[in-house]
Amino acid sequence: MINTASFAEGHLNQLMAENIDQRKVTPRSQDFAAWYNEIIARAELADYSPVRGCIVFRPDGFAIWENLRDELDRRIKQTGARNAYFPLFIPESFLRKEAQHVEGFAPEVAVVTHGGGKELEEPLVVRPTSETIINHMFANWIHSHRDLPLMINQWCNVVRWEMRTRPFLRTAEFLWQEGHTAHATPAEAQRETQLMLEVYRSFVEEFLAIPLVYGRKSAAERFPGAEETYTIESLMPDGRALQCGTSHYLGDNFARAFEIRFLDENNELKYPHQTSWGVSTRLLGAIIMTHGDDQGLRLPPAVAATQVVIVPIWRKTEEGESVLAAARAAQTALTEAGVRVRLDDREGLTPGFKFNDWEMRGVPLRIEIGPRDVAANEAVLARRDIAGREGKSKARLDQLMSPVKELLTEIQRNLYQQAKSAMDSNTYRLDSYADLKRRMEGEGGGGLVDIYWCGNPNCELKIREETRATCRAIPLSQNDATGVCIVCGEESRERAYFAKAY
Amino acid sequence: MINTASFAEGHLNQLMAENIDQRKVTPRSQDFAAWYNEIIARAELADYSPVRGCIVFRPDGFAIWENLRDELDRRIKQTGARNAYFPLFIPESFLRKEAQHVEGFAPEVAVVTHGGGKELEEPLVVRPTSETIINHMFANWIHSHRDLPLMINQWCNVVRWEMRTRPFLRTAEFLWQEGHTAHATPAEAQRETQLMLEVYRSFVEEFLAIPLVYGRKSAAERFPGAEETYTIESLMPDGRALQCGTSHYLGDNFARAFEIRFLDENNELKYPHQTSWGVSTRLLGAIIMTHGDDQGLRLPPAVAATQVVIVPIWRKTEEGESVLAAARAAQTALTEAGVRVRLDDREGLTPGFKFNDWEMRGVPLRIEIGPRDVAANEAVLARRDIAGREGKSKARLDQLMSPVKELLTEIQRNLYQQAKSAMDSNTYRLDSYADLKRRMEGEGGGGLVDIYWCGNPNCELKIREETRATCRAIPLSQNDATGVCIVCGEESRERAYFAKAY
Repeated sequence: MINTASFAEGHLNQLMAENIDQRKVTPRSQDFAAWYNEIIARAELADYSPVRGCIVFRPDGFAIWENLRDELDRRIKQTGARNAYFPLFIPESFLRKEAQHVEGFAPEVAVVTHGGGKELEEPLVVRPTSETIINHMFANWIHSHRDLPLMINQWCNVVRWEMRTRPFLRTAEFLWQEGHTAHATPAEAQRETQLMLEVYRSFVEEFLAIPLVYGRKSAAERFPGAEETYTIESLMPDGRALQCGTSHYLGDNFARAFEIRFLDENNELKYPHQTSWGVSTRLLGAIIMTHGDDQGLRLPPAVAATQVVIVPIWRKTEEGESVLAAARAAQTALTEAGVRVRLDDREGLTPGFKFNDWEMRGVPLRIEIGPRDVAANEAVLARRDIAGREGKSKARLDQLMSPVKELLTEIQRNLYQQAKSAMDSNTYRLDSYADLKRRMEGEGGGGLVDIYWCGNPNCELKIREETRATCRAIPLSQNDATGVCIVCGEESRERAYFAKAY
Repeated sequence: MINTASFAEGHLNQLMAENIDQRKVTPRSQDFAAWYNEIIARAELADYSPVRGCIVFRPDGFAIWENLRDELDRRIKQTGARNAYFPLFIPESFLRKEAQHVEGFAPEVAVVTHGGGKELEEPLVVRPTSETIINHMFANWIHSHRDLPLMINQWCNVVRWEMRTRPFLRTAEFLWQEGHTAHATPAEAQRETQLMLEVYRSFVEEFLAIPLVYGRKSAAERFPGAEETYTIESLMPDGRALQCGTSHYLGDNFARAFEIRFLDENNELKYPHQTSWGVSTRLLGAIIMTHGDDQGLRLPPAVAATQVVIVPIWRKTEEGESVLAAARAAQTALTEAGVRVRLDDREGLTPGFKFNDWEMRGVPLRIEIGPRDVAANEAVLARRDIAGREGKSKARLDQLMSPVKELLTEIQRNLYQQAKSAMDSNTYRLDSYADLKRRMEGEGGGGLVDIYWCGNPNCELKIREETRATCRAIPLSQNDATGVCIVCGEESRERAYFAKAY
């Protein structure tokens, strides 16, 4: 159990044997895409798979997803929705029942044509989303206004045959939750749509520490089959926006397509009004990009599988015993206090190596305990969000709980603030189309621009074609001021966020 | 909020309007299969889907799965395994790499031949199990003895194109967990195989209150590609056995097929030895069949989404207020004590109707609160596991926590005992082949027979062909006695359980 070798001895051999790569990663500022891929590999979050466009979620990556999922699941259930599970396969004919829906999804589906050694009579589509099969079942379950609202959520895998894929951000198979609800009135369904937008917004800002803009999508950016799509969008450090979640008001489009009807209080047969809403494993990409730095991943404490790592430090054998005992006591005390803590008692590795390793893996707080610390009843607490001396403080070894909990709260808050400052400083309120073009042509992704837009799809199209920026969100609350559209100069009542997008 | 109608009024109308079917189900003794299907429909656990052999898990059914999954996940993680996620699709060529594996699974796979509107160069199989793709990745991750043991678990959907399907018991798509581990030595892998068998056994007996027999499978019943398969088996009330979980020792079969090798301490290149193990949504079928009765589902408290339902009872409006207030107070107190409790304050339904409804849904404990109870600071506690007066007791309304918790523990214990008695009384230690044949030819499924079998596959085949019973499990601990094989009369060192199986 106790380290008897001096650190110099065998360190390099150990490194080689463990095949741990501690070279620096490509700096984020130098090549953002390369940095992103390297972080994912080096922090062991995911790996490429032999199946086109599909990744493997390794345990350290999947643990982030599990924490995120459990918390969001709790919040979704609080709204009254309940989990269920529907088939992976959807009859191809179902997809064709809603005109816009088939247009949106047919080009990117995977199709099962053979089962049990025989060709199928009707091909089955691997779900790209489950509106069609869920609404088919809703038609069996909804008969009376007493059956409404019906609020279902599903955690599952979906498949979309994307041309260009990137780990977490765009993969052929991904994991997500999809909520599907049916309501007696349009107003109630619209309230649900906006409620779920707010559930997503607060979850992503509070739990993942990712700042957002949010609002309506333009008609061009709507979900296929929706009357209105709402979105939460974050701005990545490379100046491109990432859609983090969407909530759709479907009107009665799917109810008509799948003949879902109910008898209202007056015994009249009506179509329910519906919503659907989802977030996916793409959120892992948002966490990595928003918070990571050139030393590796930085995980918000709320979502980190390991919130605190304890690194015991000693040189002489006789010191090791008391240091390890103190480290174990600290681990026990913090675990009992509900902190997710890990003790790094690996042998033959230098403290410096371990520091780098845990920094790469994004653990929010490190506790260093050496012989002198034990003697002085002290420990050093080093924050992942603030580098160097500035991020270090001391605490009493036998009273770690309060300072650790306070620091975790503070780190969560600070990661959000750092990201918010970065987003704000890359958000531009522009009034001239020339400025917009210049901004999108410059270095970096161009950032988030906040402009008056008249709402005309032609103006939106011009921006997209000439700058590659698209409408990300039209904020729900607008002040009463009016301005002129940045493209056509017509009077405009609404400002909108445009950006190049992932 | 308060019920102003008398119970007689509107009751039948309400029933019609709510479309709730309170007719009796087909008795279990009369037609077990019909009873099973009716319980699933009436307790709203699942529904048939438009996709061949696939079911929809409705919220009340899925909630049981969620509770079961969360507890088993906790126990699996305690063994040191970590969750990960691998692709749904597997290149068809992978399946062919292990000879027995392809033979076992190729006939029942679903095959994706088209993606994104184009025919694929190599068809993709929808995973029937993930040994092949996971071991492909293991080959990338395992290089040194320091990388071992590698212990991975995955919760996911799998697809097997079964000919005859039954809800939960055998469906084309089902949900499960599959563990996959790699170890430096055969002994360590064998220990892991048996450890997971014990994790499954204790979980199913303790948490699901389902009694089991367990042991090795015969060679004929092994997992395709395994050296040894261990199983937990339960006996259903219709006298047929249900395989509830399996744990496989794979030897180095997959390591050789996928070229997984590691350098051991002496710098020699070796194949790791592996295991895989899984349980599935089939466990929901085991719960329903083991515990259900002619009034409906009976859920063990540990796994029940609702452990306690409170039914407030009153006739006069002025009574309603105090009864409902008392019911809400009880709900709050029990919820705070960690009990999963629900208040049935639906209006216009008789208490008798509600009692039947919750009995059908299997809620373990019902609390009845009426005006006289409120006045006397009392409540009636009615157990689902013991019908009528005998299952009823009284408790102080303001001190429900202890009696409720004690009763839930007692119900969990009693459901196990009832099931254990039923299994024991349908288990037969037989010494003559004529008795075995008679038993399997009689009414009912035949039960579980405990026989000496010499281990010769020909004797096993003869039993299967002549009685339809198969070898379910060869217990791990055998007393030292020897006997004669029930078929051939040769000396036999082991007893084995045979039964007709689901």
